[in-house]
Amino acid sequence: MKNVAIAALALAATALPVVAQSIKPEDQIHLRQSTMALIGYNFGSLAAMAQDKKPFNKEEAQRNADILPMLAALPKPFFGEGTETGGNTKAKPEIWKNLPDFTSKLEKMQHEVGKLPEAVRSGDMAAFKKQVSDTAKACKSCHDDYRAK
Amino acid sequence: MKNVAIAALALAATALPVVAQSIKPEDQIHLRQSTMALIGYNFGSLAAMAQDKKPFNKEEAQRNADILPMLAALPKPFFGEGTETGGNTKAKPEIWKNLPDFTSKLEKMQHEVGKLPEAVRSGDMAAFKKQVSDTAKACKSCHDDYRAK
Repeated sequence: MKNVAIAALALAATALPVVAQSIKPEDQIHLRQSTMALIGYNFGSLAAMAQDKKPFNKEEAQRNADILPMLAALPKPFFGEGTETGGNTKAKPEIWKNLPDFTSKLEKMQHEVGKLPEAVRSGDMAAFKKQVSDTAKACKSCHDDYRAK
Repeated sequence: MKNVAIAALALAATALPVVAQSIKPEDQIHLRQSTMALIGYNFGSLAAMAQDKKPFNKEEAQRNADILPMLAALPKPFFGEGTETGGNTKAKPEIWKNLPDFTSKLEKMQHEVGKLPEAVRSGDMAAFKKQVSDTAKACKSCHDDYRAK
């Protein structure tokens, strides 16, 4: 319990600015990278199915799709002050020079990801493939501008 | 949201060998560490509220609690062959020597985490605090045996 409680205190946070203030920059970088890794893993599985690179499995696709909106909601507060460098971050300094544009692109990703659960649930493969494609475009749009190669 | 917890538990039982075979060991380590970081972040917020170390906010607590069963369902397949070392893993070699016990402790954690969404939803603070405590014990039980300091 003690370890958990310590971790709890270190990581506990509420509103966005509070998060940026209360979580150490290196932990913010670690948390945003962790989020992106899990988004990549879950979306990667959907993308492989949408591209017929692995067989479509509705149960697995639904699981992947259902967690994505929750994951997509997480990283926004982890781009706080002092997180421009460190921890092998691939985040470009342009993020903090163009914060409204970055935020807009991140929100566009959240918007598209938010449609994935229903696209899978519908059973309409064309709709599923289109939504995966639209989501991938939203990811790429932000990565092209704000993530180092 | 009960169905979410059930879905998450179902995911826990998915084809471990398939994932283990198709994801590189270093990626498995990265994904399990990413998952644990996000579990720590979300549970940490709940633990701080349960311990009155930050004000209870039901909306935030529900968000934290609702994502946890999905996150808890993820790491199990990422302890595959070849992931015993590398990537600064804190996983002890005892995991692979006592896989049934490790799996049992991991599933106990999933079981306790699965009760968190309803514990928050109930609005019963005593039930919430008890469930956070039970979950923390399940985390600690596995970390004590299988995670390096």
